[in-house]
Amino acid sequence: MATVANSVPHEILVEVDPFIPADQQKASGYCSFRIHCINISYPQGLHNRWHPDIPAFATVKPGQVFDIHCVDWTGAQIGNNDTSDDIQNIDLSKIHNLSGPIAVEGAEPGDCLVVDILDVRPFDKMPWGYTGIFELENGGGLFAREFNSRAAKAIWDFKGIYATSRHIPGVRFAGVSHPGLIGTAPSHELLATWNAREGALIEAHANSVPPVAYGPLEKGAYVGQDLEEEVMKKIAREGARTIPGREHGGNCDIKNLSRGSRCYFPVFVKGANLSVGDLHFSQGDGELSFCGAIEMAGVIKFSTSIIKGGIEKFALKQPIFLPSPIDPLYSSKLVFEGISVDYHGDGKQYNMDATVAYKQAALNAIAYLQKIGYTREQAYLLLSAAPVESHVGAVVDSPNACVTLALPLGIFEHDILPKEEGLTKLNFGQCAIRPSSHLTPAHAQDWMSINEVTG
Amino acid sequence: MATVANSVPHEILVEVDPFIPADQQKASGYCSFRIHCINISYPQGLHNRWHPDIPAFATVKPGQVFDIHCVDWTGAQIGNNDTSDDIQNIDLSKIHNLSGPIAVEGAEPGDCLVVDILDVRPFDKMPWGYTGIFELENGGGLFAREFNSRAAKAIWDFKGIYATSRHIPGVRFAGVSHPGLIGTAPSHELLATWNAREGALIEAHANSVPPVAYGPLEKGAYVGQDLEEEVMKKIAREGARTIPGREHGGNCDIKNLSRGSRCYFPVFVKGANLSVGDLHFSQGDGELSFCGAIEMAGVIKFSTSIIKGGIEKFALKQPIFLPSPIDPLYSSKLVFEGISVDYHGDGKQYNMDATVAYKQAALNAIAYLQKIGYTREQAYLLLSAAPVESHVGAVVDSPNACVTLALPLGIFEHDILPKEEGLTKLNFGQCAIRPSSHLTPAHAQDWMSINEVTG
Amino acid sequence: MATVANSVPHEILVEVDPFIPADQQKASGYCSFRIHCINISYPQGLHNRWHPDIPAFATVKPGQVFDIHCVDWTGAQIGNNDTSDDIQNIDLSKIHNLSGPIAVEGAEPGDCLVVDILDVRPFDKMPWGYTGIFELENGGGLFAREFNSRAAKAIWDFKGIYATSRHIPGVRFAGVSHPGLIGTAPSHELLATWNAREGALIEAHANSVPPVAYGPLEKGAYVGQDLEEEVMKKIAREGARTIPGREHGGNCDIKNLSRGSRCYFPVFVKGANLSVGDLHFSQGDGELSFCGAIEMAGVIKFSTSIIKGGIEKFALKQPIFLPSPIDPLYSSKLVFEGISVDYHGDGKQYNMDATVAYKQAALNAIAYLQKIGYTREQAYLLLSAAPVESHVGAVVDSPNACVTLALPLGIFEHDILPKEEGLTKLNFGQCAIRPSSHLTPAHAQDWMSINEVTG
Amino acid sequence: MATVANSVPHEILVEVDPFIPADQQKASGYCSFRIHCINISYPQGLHNRWHPDIPAFATVKPGQVFDIHCVDWTGAQIGNNDTSDDIQNIDLSKIHNLSGPIAVEGAEPGDCLVVDILDVRPFDKMPWGYTGIFELENGGGLFAREFNSRAAKAIWDFKGIYATSRHIPGVRFAGVSHPGLIGTAPSHELLATWNAREGALIEAHANSVPPVAYGPLEKGAYVGQDLEEEVMKKIAREGARTIPGREHGGNCDIKNLSRGSRCYFPVFVKGANLSVGDLHFSQGDGELSFCGAIEMAGVIKFSTSIIKGGIEKFALKQPIFLPSPIDPLYSSKLVFEGISVDYHGDGKQYNMDATVAYKQAALNAIAYLQKIGYTREQAYLLLSAAPVESHVGAVVDSPNACVTLALPLGIFEHDILPKEEGLTKLNFGQCAIRPSSHLTPAHAQDWMSINEVTG
Repeated sequence: MATVANSVPHEILVEVDPFIPADQQKASGYCSFRIHCINISYPQGLHNRWHPDIPAFATVKPGQVFDIHCVDWTGAQIGNNDTSDDIQNIDLSKIHNLSGPIAVEGAEPGDCLVVDILDVRPFDKMPWGYTGIFELENGGGLFAREFNSRAAKAIWDFKGIYATSRHIPGVRFAGVSHPGLIGTAPSHELLATWNAREGALIEAHANSVPPVAYGPLEKGAYVGQDLEEEVMKKIAREGARTIPGREHGGNCDIKNLSRGSRCYFPVFVKGANLSVGDLHFSQGDGELSFCGAIEMAGVIKFSTSIIKGGIEKFALKQPIFLPSPIDPLYSSKLVFEGISVDYHGDGKQYNMDATVAYKQAALNAIAYLQKIGYTREQAYLLLSAAPVESHVGAVVDSPNACVTLALPLGIFEHDILPKEEGLTKLNFGQCAIRPSSHLTPAHAQDWMSINEVTG
Repeated sequence: MATVANSVPHEILVEVDPFIPADQQKASGYCSFRIHCINISYPQGLHNRWHPDIPAFATVKPGQVFDIHCVDWTGAQIGNNDTSDDIQNIDLSKIHNLSGPIAVEGAEPGDCLVVDILDVRPFDKMPWGYTGIFELENGGGLFAREFNSRAAKAIWDFKGIYATSRHIPGVRFAGVSHPGLIGTAPSHELLATWNAREGALIEAHANSVPPVAYGPLEKGAYVGQDLEEEVMKKIAREGARTIPGREHGGNCDIKNLSRGSRCYFPVFVKGANLSVGDLHFSQGDGELSFCGAIEMAGVIKFSTSIIKGGIEKFALKQPIFLPSPIDPLYSSKLVFEGISVDYHGDGKQYNMDATVAYKQAALNAIAYLQKIGYTREQAYLLLSAAPVESHVGAVVDSPNACVTLALPLGIFEHDILPKEEGLTKLNFGQCAIRPSSHLTPAHAQDWMSINEVTG
Repeated sequence: MATVANSVPHEILVEVDPFIPADQQKASGYCSFRIHCINISYPQGLHNRWHPDIPAFATVKPGQVFDIHCVDWTGAQIGNNDTSDDIQNIDLSKIHNLSGPIAVEGAEPGDCLVVDILDVRPFDKMPWGYTGIFELENGGGLFAREFNSRAAKAIWDFKGIYATSRHIPGVRFAGVSHPGLIGTAPSHELLATWNAREGALIEAHANSVPPVAYGPLEKGAYVGQDLEEEVMKKIAREGARTIPGREHGGNCDIKNLSRGSRCYFPVFVKGANLSVGDLHFSQGDGELSFCGAIEMAGVIKFSTSIIKGGIEKFALKQPIFLPSPIDPLYSSKLVFEGISVDYHGDGKQYNMDATVAYKQAALNAIAYLQKIGYTREQAYLLLSAAPVESHVGAVVDSPNACVTLALPLGIFEHDILPKEEGLTKLNFGQCAIRPSSHLTPAHAQDWMSINEVTG
Repeated sequence: MATVANSVPHEILVEVDPFIPADQQKASGYCSFRIHCINISYPQGLHNRWHPDIPAFATVKPGQVFDIHCVDWTGAQIGNNDTSDDIQNIDLSKIHNLSGPIAVEGAEPGDCLVVDILDVRPFDKMPWGYTGIFELENGGGLFAREFNSRAAKAIWDFKGIYATSRHIPGVRFAGVSHPGLIGTAPSHELLATWNAREGALIEAHANSVPPVAYGPLEKGAYVGQDLEEEVMKKIAREGARTIPGREHGGNCDIKNLSRGSRCYFPVFVKGANLSVGDLHFSQGDGELSFCGAIEMAGVIKFSTSIIKGGIEKFALKQPIFLPSPIDPLYSSKLVFEGISVDYHGDGKQYNMDATVAYKQAALNAIAYLQKIGYTREQAYLLLSAAPVESHVGAVVDSPNACVTLALPLGIFEHDILPKEEGLTKLNFGQCAIRPSSHLTPAHAQDWMSINEVTG
């Protein structure tokens, strides 16, 4: 037939089953997306620490288009149901589960790795994702302390480009799908720098709950390749955790690094060794509830190229990128302002602190959403998951940083604009949430100074 | 004639001459914009402190369209020339010069004042503005310390909707014109709250240079109305400085609160008493050089309405707004990432600090702009003045906040995209700047701990 | 004072009083916009025909920023009132009144004249404009015949960037302000081509009402310069009418050739001789009611440059342009489809006729607007005046061309989306319109074949 | 495992193999996208005529999300290779191959069927599509006559959201993916109306090449269901061809009816009986080369709902729709103007003919693209396939309709803006095209009057 000739699907370099925990992934009996099926049994190309000694799992040529499967960031720990027990009891030592590393032929330290994020989408067989509110001792989140958060969850159904949730009715929005976490492998030097500077911070805030940062942790460390024990141990002992973004990219959770964007990464090791994971169907600027994006398992499509000496050419201290022409456009917005003051009723003045200003803007938006009928938890989850835009207004008008948070009006089924007659309050039910009759954790009565949290 | 009937220009409620210092404004011989000309001699409706006892200078009915003239924020202290002496020697005790207050009939505490910002434009007779870099002891700015800034300045020529600068060649952009400063008058209670909380911060950072906040200051206080001495003294003694944004709006420097936007202000005093000033032809998110916008004198057009009980109806702790449909749209952007670490070479890890992350993103952008030929000062001024977008990426990935800064590509005359062959470095000269042979201030060798600055 | 030095307003090259008929403009006693005031008495730089022998009224250097005043297209024939008599009785022999020609130093035939349309705005003293429906024998309009139109009018009040109308309540929109008519002077050869080809069409449709085209007409011809009688007569006898757009630009009525756009014109005569007029505060794609834009008098700001040999370099048969970054953005739209069939109930099939398809889409939109309460005339005027977008869908699917027309939802005060419960019909009154008791013109009973109109 | 529960893929209601001709589709051995696999052998739910007697192939409930597979519009006739023989020899009697009809429970004549187009994407196993230029006697196209077109073709590779072509190097763009053809089934009355009115047009232009319209044709008629012979014969005899768009939607080729849009269709038969096909990865406004979109086989995801009595409620003569928030946004554009004159060198004046004006704008764009190095055929294909925007400028300025065509600058790898030094001409090779040494068809010397073509 005419069309079958030269119809070659893009190769899948890492293949996973989104229903199996990351560290139990072994073989996929049937590879639904590719024509020539290699029977892979082990290893499968997942890892959850950053370390230069993790070998490349696969190698690509510049210009090659390829697919990478990703489990969700927790590795199949969260279910499509109406309780939040799985959120409450999540094992965070195992996250994030990254796919890779992928080496690019010819890449060397000092180069720039150009990565085209050509597509990001959920598995057809798993058309749903979730957003979670974590409790203070297990993950936290921007308002874990202020809200004395009980574990909560919203399940989102994927309907093509849109997401809706039975736990947050009344909204539907187009996903700005992206990898929450993507980066090149660090060099030994860079890794040492990370561990030193983060170690110093941890030391300075030794008893913070949740911790201010996460040092290397042997428990839970995992590399889905057949490594010598010595190497694996070293990786577990030294490997940087995946929680924060860093100079190589990493867990930046930038919603606009989305499908269609082109990203320029600094290269620190031979081959560049790109890893990716924590796919998000959507996310708001700030990702405020920590697990704030719509988390999903899925497929990401890439092509890459190399610019020799690109770090020097472009003064590349951290990735730079060109956003996608298809990021959702909702031109009508309601914008909330926040300043670096009084963010949880203490009336205190903070010093040009954009984090506090962001929180204030978010709290103002949450208060507004409660006026139209959402619970505080629904509002918190919605701001985290929807394509909310947050701009730094000004950070020079001492002592108040000013940050704005813009709610796109087009995502709501109802008109939520301020009206002379006030706002109509509807009943949207509630998200999945731990019943309040459950034991309230002791810490909640006992506020830490905000300085500890944001200082 | 057919067209003359019913042609009624909008009334000008505050009229100024942009060439005369704010406190010398007295009379305008010819009122070019209104038909019925009142010969005003004194007072002229400017003031530079926030205080509930400043009487309304004029009163409008809801629905009325009216114009307000504004001097530039410094009150005619800066000249269209090629030296930066005026920046270096500016008298900051006199700023900002605000026009108003304007009372709205029927507004009462607890209401929401809806303000339509219908237009913002420069005076035809003064088609230029400026962006300045201040030195550390007189104003400062985001990088005053790191850059050991010498006073510098760029003059921008207004050509209709566009600005260009002989001091920063190679760019042209559409202004997102807005009032940097707009707000309702505080109540006595609110004013007392401001003074208390800011006083506490000042006390905690007593010797900061520049100060972390600015308390009431009698020197330079000014109200351009015929007030009893007692009242004037009280205002000078207690009146809040205009530097920061606060719950009433104020100096938020939000670039998207631009002409065409609709803003909802909380009302704290009878009449609402709206004041406005610090008009900007354009500004980037963050306004990083402190006097970072393109500062101008000009005319702002308003109409207002009142929503009774709006504070309660909309949970209005601070203004909220609907942005304009004509904000400049430059869809192609180059985005820089920043994390809360190592922002001036100290390699230090900060704790989820979005201000540090913003600075890091800005530094990365400045480094890139230097690669294409701009000086550090030109780059600093350009990021401050152009319609740069800065988003909060994520503030939950401990310990790194992530902030992005997006440079619109369409404002450059040349293609500045990363290319395989590297970037072409052109010679763009330099902005107006204090010669480095001038005495370097002593403080520059002596870095304050960053905690002092951002903590 | 610091700011007065080097504050030079842009020069006004053509200065008019918008309250005086175009051919009576003589002197302006006080020139409110410029510093150095030349006492002009006559000529004043208006003309209403295209002819190479009209001398340049003023000359500019490349790069110079300058202002041009324009009367409204009718030259002050329409009043701000609630009757449509002025529309009904308009003298169309005198239109359009153009300002210019402006010669650009160095421009020669074969060059490309680059024109930056830097701003377009109404006079402060005339903050209103109008949209009119013309009757069939005097002007017509897209539906003059189908609707058997009675003269009608909507007055629009300008409130900064927005327009509202007491004759079409319930909408407010940002203007996409532009010159409806702008072009370079034709050469003698080009003029002869126009007259020949249009003459042939007129001949082929000799009795059309309204005429299919307008040949040279001595009556009403006007050039506001001190010309020798012989020259003036020649211009009147040969000069092309200003109604259609042509290769030099002219009356293209392209709404996106707006303030902020850059246009590349072919040059046909020495100096290029640019003329401009027919300023529009706003317009919808198609400008369907003929006088369909919001017509206004006002000021347009330009700068120009020359590209030598540009016609050849860019294959410039007609102007090309770069649109403005500040054109109004209303991302939510309701789109109507139209095909080239059955456009006024005749059920007839037309052959790939995009004009018919456009009309069908417009009729579908009008029917929808009537469902929400607008009269047919209000809907007709609204589609003409608001920033409606009309795209050519496809012109290859024989026999139906498909054209869409998109109504921006953000311009309506109410939610007009299709709802399960149907649409809410409000009472918006009516525009200014000739009472139907007035004599109905005879032609209305007597439909011309549609072939005559569109073929 | 946590994630597997409640993970239910959307049901595939019509399943095809894109490598098999439409009328040979029989069974798919393994259904890769659904969990419960029904072994389908025949029928398979394709048809290529519009007729009310074609039974629903499947039925859905309102709110149900479901997938439909579509073959490409030709049913696998075109290959991924470098010759255009398949284009030249295509059998047009068999097109378009539509999937469906899908009945919606509860839909009745007079209702409005709301269709959410949730996603449109190519098959993973066929990541490519094509754009073709047809010759005059077999399909034609907007410039088939003027260009004396030889059959030509460009193959496009799909790389996630982007398309690139080895036949048109130097461009890459995001697809505005959409169904070229989607509609509800006509009633018997509506079908009769179509056949009557199109028959009249065909009669009036009996010898046109290509035909002005296509009447019912028994040859090639196909319905992939197990029908009684009598019924099938009736459908073949009366069924409307699928070429044009009509009141029910149909082949409108509206690029913005894309994934993410919501469309409101009139319902003419019980169940509504929705059919879809002719998927496009991308298309420019106008689709000028006839097979101008990037044609593809693929999957479309829908959900539907019903608004009772919607035809009356919304005055629904033809579909209306809400466009998608993720349509590609390229804000920088170069816009070409066209008027209804002289479109192929005849210098003739047409009467307010938007089709001619569109052609003129397209010709001006093609001339420009040739200046930067594309061949005429490449330019023709590119304008057809890329997200080009064409607006109706004005259709009231007798005798010239004005239409614009905007080329997005962001799709080009090089800067194509007009420059003082002229345009850089690169060598982009050529598309697949019939060698000119092949026999030139006789008709080419023999120009029909343009009146015949555009009517």
